[in-house]
Formats: sequence, C-alpha cells, structure tokens
Amino acid sequence: MREIKIGLLGCGTVGGGVITVLQMNKDIIEQRVGAKLTLAKVLCRPEDMTRPVLKGLNTTFELEDILNDPSIDIVVELIGGTRVAKDFLLRAMDAGKHVVTANKDVIAQFGKEVFDAVERNNIDFLFEAAVGGGIPIIMPLKRCLTANRLTEVLGIVNGTTNYMLTKMAEVGADYDTVLKEAQALGYAEANPASDVEGLDAARKAAILASLAFNSRVQLKDVHVEGITKITTADIDYAKSLGYVVKLLAVGKDTPLGIDVRVHPAFLPKAHPLASVNGVLNAIFVRGNSIGEAMFFGPGAGGVPTASAVISDIIEIARNILNGKPGAVGCTCYGDKPLCPIEEIVTSYYIRLLVDDKPGVLGSIAKIFGDAGVSLKSVVQTAHNKDRAEIVVITHAVKYKAIIDAANRLKELPVVDDVLGMIRVHSEDEAQKND
Amino acid sequence: MREIKIGLLGCGTVGGGVITVLQMNKDIIEQRVGAKLTLAKVLCRPEDMTRPVLKGLNTTFELEDILNDPSIDIVVELIGGTRVAKDFLLRAMDAGKHVVTANKDVIAQFGKEVFDAVERNNIDFLFEAAVGGGIPIIMPLKRCLTANRLTEVLGIVNGTTNYMLTKMAEVGADYDTVLKEAQALGYAEANPASDVEGLDAARKAAILASLAFNSRVQLKDVHVEGITKITTADIDYAKSLGYVVKLLAVGKDTPLGIDVRVHPAFLPKAHPLASVNGVLNAIFVRGNSIGEAMFFGPGAGGVPTASAVISDIIEIARNILNGKPGAVGCTCYGDKPLCPIEEIVTSYYIRLLVDDKPGVLGSIAKIFGDAGVSLKSVVQTAHNKDRAEIVVITHAVKYKAIIDAANRLKELPVVDDVLGMIRVHSEDEAQKND
Repeated sequence: MREIKIGLLGCGTVGGGVITVLQMNKDIIEQRVGAKLTLAKVLCRPEDMTRPVLKGLNTTFELEDILNDPSIDIVVELIGGTRVAKDFLLRAMDAGKHVVTANKDVIAQFGKEVFDAVERNNIDFLFEAAVGGGIPIIMPLKRCLTANRLTEVLGIVNGTTNYMLTKMAEVGADYDTVLKEAQALGYAEANPASDVEGLDAARKAAILASLAFNSRVQLKDVHVEGITKITTADIDYAKSLGYVVKLLAVGKDTPLGIDVRVHPAFLPKAHPLASVNGVLNAIFVRGNSIGEAMFFGPGAGGVPTASAVISDIIEIARNILNGKPGAVGCTCYGDKPLCPIEEIVTSYYIRLLVDDKPGVLGSIAKIFGDAGVSLKSVVQTAHNKDRAEIVVITHAVKYKAIIDAANRLKELPVVDDVLGMIRVHSEDEAQKND
Repeated sequence: MREIKIGLLGCGTVGGGVITVLQMNKDIIEQRVGAKLTLAKVLCRPEDMTRPVLKGLNTTFELEDILNDPSIDIVVELIGGTRVAKDFLLRAMDAGKHVVTANKDVIAQFGKEVFDAVERNNIDFLFEAAVGGGIPIIMPLKRCLTANRLTEVLGIVNGTTNYMLTKMAEVGADYDTVLKEAQALGYAEANPASDVEGLDAARKAAILASLAFNSRVQLKDVHVEGITKITTADIDYAKSLGYVVKLLAVGKDTPLGIDVRVHPAFLPKAHPLASVNGVLNAIFVRGNSIGEAMFFGPGAGGVPTASAVISDIIEIARNILNGKPGAVGCTCYGDKPLCPIEEIVTSYYIRLLVDDKPGVLGSIAKIFGDAGVSLKSVVQTAHNKDRAEIVVITHAVKYKAIIDAANRLKELPVVDDVLGMIRVHSEDEAQKND
C-alpha cells in the first residue's frame, strides 16, 4: 500500500485536533484514501513540547526539516496569523509541496500571492477550514454551486460574537457580562478585539465574496462594524419588532459592484440564519438557479475544524494517487469593482435618547425628511421623568443619507444621544441598489 | 477555446430546467469551465416536441444519435425511473461517455451495476441531484466529511410530504385537504403514492446511508412507513409536547449494523431539522470530528435541481480539461450488515382510543409493562361522552416490543383503537442500540 506523508506546521488548538482525529479515524481515513497516511513531522515551538498530543510523533523546530524531506507530499499550515505563516506557506509551495491551511488571514490579505504560487508550482492548495470551521462551504462554493450566478452570500461566521448575542437575547445579560462569560468558557480570547470588532468575520467575508463572485476581495475591501455598541435594549427592541440581532458577514453582487461588509443586523425571525445560535456558524447563499441554500455547523474548535483540514488532506491524497492535482485552482477570474459603502441601500433601526417634551417627534421627523430618509415606523417610550426613547425603523436608504441624518440629529438640542443605528436585513436590498 | 459537448436524455421538468439555466448562465458557466459548453443533442419523445424550451436545439428520438456521436463528451440522463433510464445510462457509460444523472431510482436499486460500469469504462459519474434537489450533499459526503466516522444521517428529503405536514401543523387542515392542495399546486402527483408512502424518501435514504457509511444500501433494505395515517390530532399532540412531526429519512451506523428507515417522527423543536418547512429539504449529519452539520435548500423543482445537475457537468468538464476523470469513484468499500428493524430502539408516541371508565389506564399500563415497554408520560383526555384518548410517550424500546404491546392492546376490550404509533427522535438513540 502506498504511503502519503504529511508535514504539519503548528500544534495549537487546530493542529492538536488534526493529530487527534488522524489517530482516532486512521482506519476509515486510509480506507477512503486507498493509501497509508502518515504524519511524518510536526513543526513545533520549544514551548509546545510538553503537549500530550505530540507523544510518539516526530517533531522539529526547523521548517527546512519538512521542506527538504522529499518523502513529504503535503504540508498542513496551522500556525495562523500572517507574520510567520505566510512565509512558511509560500516556501512550502515553492518547495513543491501540496498545501492545506486553515489560515483565513493569509488568504484574505495575500490571496493573489498565494494563488500565484499555487499556479507557478502546479500544486493542490485547499483551505476548507478558513471559513466556517468544519462546515463544508469552500468546496461547495467552488464546485457545487457553479451553475449559479450567485447574488448574495450571508454568514454567521464568528462563533464568539454569535454566542454573546445569543446569550444577551436569551438571558438578558449585558455586553460586559456575556463577554466575561465567553472568556471564561474559552470562546473569547483575553483580548477579544478581533472577534467583537468584526475583523475575524471580515476576513471570512472577503473569502466568501471572492469565491461567490469570482473576483478577488481582500480584507481591506470590507466595511467592518463590530458588536461592541450593541445593548440589551437594542436586542429587546429587535425581539419585539420580529427580529434577532446577528453579526452578519454580507457579500452581494450588485450593479454598482461587490458590496462586502460585516456588521450587526436586525434579521427577520423567519430567515434560515435567525435560528443559528450559540457558537454555531452558518452560511446562506442565494443564486439564480438554486434559489436559497444554507450550510450549518461548528465554526470553530480543534476537533470540528480538523474535519475540514483532514478532508482537504484526503482530497489531495486522492489526487496524488490519481496522478494529477485537482482540476480547480484559483477561481477569482474577474476584476469586479467594489460598491462604495456610501452607496449601499438598507433599512436602519435607530434608537434616540431625547427630551420628553412636546414637539420633539416633529423636529426629529423633519430632520429625517430633510436628509431624504423616510420612516417605516416610529415608537416612542418614556425612559425616565425627563427623557424618552424614540425607536425608528427607516425605509431603505443609502448609508450616506443615514449618516447625514444622524449628524443632523446629534446637533438638535432636544436629542441627547443617537444610539443603535443597526442595519435591518431585508430580502429586497439587492434590487434596490439599481 | 475548447468545446465540450453534452447530450441530454429527457426534457421533462428537470431537463427543461437544465436547458433554461445553461442558456441563462452561459457566460458565467463557460468562464468557470474555461471552455465552451454546448448542448449538442436532446433525446425527446415525439410528444415533447411542442415544448418551447426545445426551441433552437438539436433534438433526436434515437439514443444512438447521441451515443454514436464521438464529439459528445458528457451524457446527462434525466429520464427518471428505472425502466428505460437504467438501460440508457449503462449504454452511455459503455459508449465511453461521462454521465450525470438525477436518477435516485437507478442508483438506489442498481448501484452496483452502475458503479461497475463506471469503473469498467474509467469515466466520471456524478449524481448530486439524486438527493436533496439542488442542495450540495453528495459531494460533501463523498469529499468534504471524509475525516469523520459518520454515525447518523437524517434527512427531510421529500418536499411534497414536508409541505403537507407543515400545512397540517400551521393551519390545522386535515390530510386529505392538504393533499388536494399540494396536488393543485403541482407539489404532489395525481397518484401521490411514491411521496406519501415514503418510497421517494426511501430511495434517497438508501443513497445517503451508502455514502455516509461506505457500504451499499439498497431500496429494498429500507424500512418504510409513509405519512398516510398522520392526523391533525397527532400533530397537535406533538406541538403541545414540544415536537414537530416530520417524515424523516434515517441512517445510523450502529454496532448491530446499518439502521436505515423512512417514517414520520416526533422531532424536538430545537433540532436543526425542525424548522425546515414547506417544500424545502435538509440533510443533517453527525460525525465524530465535525459533531453536527446541516445542508439546507430546495429539494425539487426544475431550475433548482438544474443547479446540481449543471454543477456536476461543470465538474466533469473541468476534469476533461485537466486530462483525468476525478479521483473519487464508488465509495461503498464496505459490506456492513443491516440492523433488523425489530432491533431498532426508539421512543414512541402512541394514541389510544379507549372506553372512558375507571380502571382503563391501569389495564393499559399493565399491558405495556407485560410487553417490556416502560412509559415516560401518559396523558388522558376526554374525547366524547363514552370515549377517552390516552396519549403515551414510551421510553426507548425495541420495535418488536412496541409491536407486541400494540397487538396486545388491540385485543383489550376497553381499547377501541391504537392510533398514532410514531417514533420519537432523540439524540441518544444510537447509543441505546449497544
């Protein structure tokens, strides 16, 4: 039986998961490949050496030990980040190794460089784990939905923030409390910025949009707003209006260009993504043949993410035995423009803290009108003896109009604060961009 | 630019959808393939010739016109059924054509013959549309979840019955009314037997189990119960007990063998499949690396199903350009035994119509006890002046025990009828088969 050898770079959470699952499912995996699959060497840092998962494995501190070993066919990069990983990944490719990675950062920031190296070296490069953890979404987008002109890809792609928003909605806890809880459970890092400010989701949004619309979208192209300003008040208003609040990764192919953004959104309760709770992830796509489809599962975690990494390894191993790299490389054929965020048309939820006196509603309505923002619904509630809250849902308007309205509102003496300002997701947004 | 030619067999609902989408998305599809994709010939019946979708296409009444045309690379079989289609499909393979089909019947009944022909001729054979319409599920099972030992695959794979059960739950309409409505909307055929008796779902269950557990499961191996006996009373009880009623295709890899069945089930409201309503389909899988995942989308319809068919065509076209058929053929390596239905362990919901007099509950409880069935909950409601309904949820028991209990109950003079008898899906079923 032929043997296919793997060099693993990194043995953190996902690396450890890959080692565990390769051992746990060795028999079934080798049967599916039709070859022996051996973890030949693991690149570690000295401080990793005490990890029990490394027991019995060949470890090394030198990348060259792996790159210069001609018996190693596949390099699996699970270091993460861009500092070291990008260099290692490119060097592995230039050493003629097939590469598997879970590294969303490198792909979202250096996709062109990476795919140039793939083409130059005529190798297989797979990265199923870069978006949605274990969920199969990259291969479905590259190979199973190719009959479609995809117009929309929507994702709940960050488990940390989805856990936090779910908890805020379920138990009414405030932002700081659920963040601490998420940290205690290991769902959020000590420095949670990348998750709660939306950067992690933005990398995934860039990758999803690139694949869905066949045109390279990079991290810097994504408009990003995090969940740090979301309050239980916003979540309660959402609930009473028939919505849930989710951090959405949004990609749309509009007549003005690719619209790609990450932000909290009011999502109608009936939307398939609305019932995706806790640390789970899901990606929803809309295409002109399939209509709608959704892919749902675990978005993070060592063992669940290993499902995607190892399935990529198996795919490449099968290609090696078949005598050819796979038939699908880079699929960013196009060079579509980006739709400027100022032009994006959506409805908004806005919560205003105002003086509770006659005429306030009228002066606020006038400001919205002056900014060209028409209102779908207005709810006023007494807040305390002097103040009131006004909750507005607008009709779909351009972002620049809503920013204009918000700036004017802030200058109004009776307006104490403009809070909320959360986009409302509706099915017909894309059409309204015409 | 290279040209790849397609011969299409059949121009019914799905065939028409394929023609429509190939024309509608010609530019984007050809960009993705990197070649011209031409529908060279369509095999029709004389009565098809008036269909507007055929306008401008080369049609033929003779299969040989397609098989003997050496310029045709890919044959797409969309005739359906087994009578003609199986023969045509095998002849296309033996003529050296790559083949795409949506034909669940042929695969579920003649899988071995078909895959023998695939291997013999060293061709590509793809059938994404055979299960779940447009939903990518076959490729994910064969290629994206291969790291996993899959233990469970659960599907809502018949849109007709899911539409009917959804309507019965939403508006309280009875079975006959919703069936007529489904027929009027074109969701159900004039003779609805294949859908409502569960045979359509059983074919898909056989295919899903074969792929998930790498061992051939055929239609005849599937235990099948349809939805014809489901009443609004059952659906109302389900609702009040925290469940929804769904027609489930179930596949489990148990220590006793592969357990594969189609039947109505009480599904907990929190299960990801529970919110899959109307004509939509979804397939839920459980594996020892990914945990849980779900694939959701349109299970039928010409244009949605064309998404899967054409994506298969594109996959094969890419392989042709790559110079090799794909690396994955038949994946039924194993020869696992089947778990006899008598041994399957689940909880049950049972509704009994009884005389409303003292001591009835006691004699019923005794019968369950004698049959070795322990009860989780019992609810008695007055039905009319002489009769009462007793609704029982049992603990998990073997099928043979529940059949035994039901037979004994029917013989009891105070029991007027044994109704319902619907399995209750719970997460821990698989374990209890040990």
